[in-house]
Amino acid sequence: MKLFGRKPDIVNTNEAKIDELLSRGVEDVFVKESLKKKLLSGKVLRIKLGIDPTSASIHLGRATLLHKLRKFQDLGHKAVLIVGDFTAQIGDPSDKLEKRPMLDSAKITENLKNYKEIIGKIINVERAEFVYNGDWLSKLGFVEVCRLAETFSVQQMMARRNFKERFDKGEEVSLREFMYPLMQGYDSVAVQADIEIGGFDQLFNLKAGRVIQKQYGMPEQDVLTTQMLEGTDGRKMSSSWGNVINITDAPNEMFGKVMSLRDELITKYFLLCTNVSAKEISEIEASLKAGDNPRNFKVCLAKEIVALYHGNAFAEAAVINFENTFKKGGIPDDTQEVEVVLGTALVEVLLANGIVKSKTEFRRLVSEGAVGEVGGETISGAEFAVTKDLTLKIGKKRFLKVRVK
Amino acid sequence: MKLFGRKPDIVNTNEAKIDELLSRGVEDVFVKESLKKKLLSGKVLRIKLGIDPTSASIHLGRATLLHKLRKFQDLGHKAVLIVGDFTAQIGDPSDKLEKRPMLDSAKITENLKNYKEIIGKIINVERAEFVYNGDWLSKLGFVEVCRLAETFSVQQMMARRNFKERFDKGEEVSLREFMYPLMQGYDSVAVQADIEIGGFDQLFNLKAGRVIQKQYGMPEQDVLTTQMLEGTDGRKMSSSWGNVINITDAPNEMFGKVMSLRDELITKYFLLCTNVSAKEISEIEASLKAGDNPRNFKVCLAKEIVALYHGNAFAEAAVINFENTFKKGGIPDDTQEVEVVLGTALVEVLLANGIVKSKTEFRRLVSEGAVGEVGGETISGAEFAVTKDLTLKIGKKRFLKVRVK
Repeated sequence: MKLFGRKPDIVNTNEAKIDELLSRGVEDVFVKESLKKKLLSGKVLRIKLGIDPTSASIHLGRATLLHKLRKFQDLGHKAVLIVGDFTAQIGDPSDKLEKRPMLDSAKITENLKNYKEIIGKIINVERAEFVYNGDWLSKLGFVEVCRLAETFSVQQMMARRNFKERFDKGEEVSLREFMYPLMQGYDSVAVQADIEIGGFDQLFNLKAGRVIQKQYGMPEQDVLTTQMLEGTDGRKMSSSWGNVINITDAPNEMFGKVMSLRDELITKYFLLCTNVSAKEISEIEASLKAGDNPRNFKVCLAKEIVALYHGNAFAEAAVINFENTFKKGGIPDDTQEVEVVLGTALVEVLLANGIVKSKTEFRRLVSEGAVGEVGGETISGAEFAVTKDLTLKIGKKRFLKVRVK
Repeated sequence: MKLFGRKPDIVNTNEAKIDELLSRGVEDVFVKESLKKKLLSGKVLRIKLGIDPTSASIHLGRATLLHKLRKFQDLGHKAVLIVGDFTAQIGDPSDKLEKRPMLDSAKITENLKNYKEIIGKIINVERAEFVYNGDWLSKLGFVEVCRLAETFSVQQMMARRNFKERFDKGEEVSLREFMYPLMQGYDSVAVQADIEIGGFDQLFNLKAGRVIQKQYGMPEQDVLTTQMLEGTDGRKMSSSWGNVINITDAPNEMFGKVMSLRDELITKYFLLCTNVSAKEISEIEASLKAGDNPRNFKVCLAKEIVALYHGNAFAEAAVINFENTFKKGGIPDDTQEVEVVLGTALVEVLLANGIVKSKTEFRRLVSEGAVGEVGGETISGAEFAVTKDLTLKIGKKRFLKVRVK
């Protein structure tokens, strides 16, 4: 699949493409009529997306925004990525200020370099603009902060969903947390955003940009949010829940994670995480409804996603590896092999090679019958010692070949 | 009455004086034990009082704080007056930011010069420290503002009485208004205040200073608020209600206003607005309870207050003027005299000389029977024309001599 088209000379105002841009994987558009008018105007628009410099990992949920940004680029618009170096210093609302280490600029520059390399798999980084919000936010004094604060009533802030939930539960909300929408909003003034895109839970912050642009006598940006993407456990994909598929995950791991998704998510993943056309996705949906085996489509999906981030060759190899491992009960090609002294306790071997993290984990796996020889017997005792060569499967995805010296 | 004692060489730790300081005219002390301990320690304490540079007029209600500050000075402590030049730029919570003109520094310097002259009648300005909060607040950036905001939860801010009342009434509270306690609190850090004094309605802001000092690793100031002083109409004395007695009011006007107070306020005024000893005030209170004529004590009170701001000679003269005018039905010595053409409408004469503000006011006064010759007839028609020399009383306190050319 070819990711980078030629640099467009003019803005593409094809209405069908615009309609798809404004609907595919989209949760909300505010104001839709205004945004469509802007996109049809032929003017090059500035599309704002805030990025977090504290982490270089990007999961598929976060990537849906980059895919959307890419589509704007493909129509000839300008992607403006805001590196939140300043907001990172302040710490996000759930943190305490003093616990958050200040990121030095060298570290941020390094993070951004890695980040650009990674997101270059989705957007055209050469044609994008990267800016640091510390460049303007650090220059604001107390008077200007008051001018920003002036734009909101306390009641408006409190009505924000995630604040309201916490107020209703009787949880404390720090006044500092109310500063966030002001910063994010002022970013829109600084970069003169025409449009801002964000996650489904960012609607309030994105709309804050409109309010603050208005306060500064600027046309208001329109905002577009993408749908929530479920992770491998069916909950919202989130780094803190360990249910993510990172776009830097190795091909086989990525493939395996996609294959472990619930069947109901197949269509949504095609829509949000691939470039497969809407027409094809409709056909897939129809086939699924007609009773076709979801597994085949899931293999297609996993291959599409791996191809997107690692290329076609790795995608093909991942299919074969997967079939080999999970379908035929085989073991992965790259399974590690270790030599041990006769009689060594298995738990020590697994610990030494990082296959299990603790004796407790090992005992739990054994008690669940999840440790055994591939194609052979399950190990039932936690005191098991190695007395012969073994090819072991530990849990669902870990493999180890043990050879006696 | 001698206002300025000699400069004390050491801190006075007389417990009786301290107890009077902490109780006379005092609404609230937080934390009382701590504050008393500080005052007994013999250490020179820094007593913070915020002042408003936008207005040079000071009424007796506001002056109660200066009297309290003076008592701290008399014990040997350091008065630190904070000129709110920065907060004045931001505008007070009831204003809109854009409507508030920025005060230039020349104007502020001029205001302060006048202000010092006026408050020099109460405190020792030579021994006081005057500082501008713009000197530190203008240097705070967004990061520091967030550090301040971190010290409060939204819920704590909302619990503040004047905010809570407005929330309960469904009125909007601007987020900017939440910035105020932060600024005032940071002032306490900047001047290293040991104690802050303020009006009875300032308790929240004063306590904010404690919270923010703590955040900056500094000992917390204790706070003392003075009681509310009623104005000439019995409501809280406030410039916006036109019920104030200003300390710059001319002697006769000041005297007359004090005489117009409700009898129930005599003792409170002695306590809050004069240096008459607590013992004497107790005796006055006892006499009043025993049925003595309040009027005599009110004359003493008015004389005390005029003497404080204009000296004894003016106070004596004001007594005589008052007796002459109001008791004997006479007219003030300084009554204005004007010449008019025969047949001039009286309303025009009064308007031309600023005695009434509008024809409507004139008609109202006439209909109330409040316009007439001193010792003569009441004027009953709004069309009344001047046909002879007249000495007129208009309303309760306005006088004019009219002479026909």
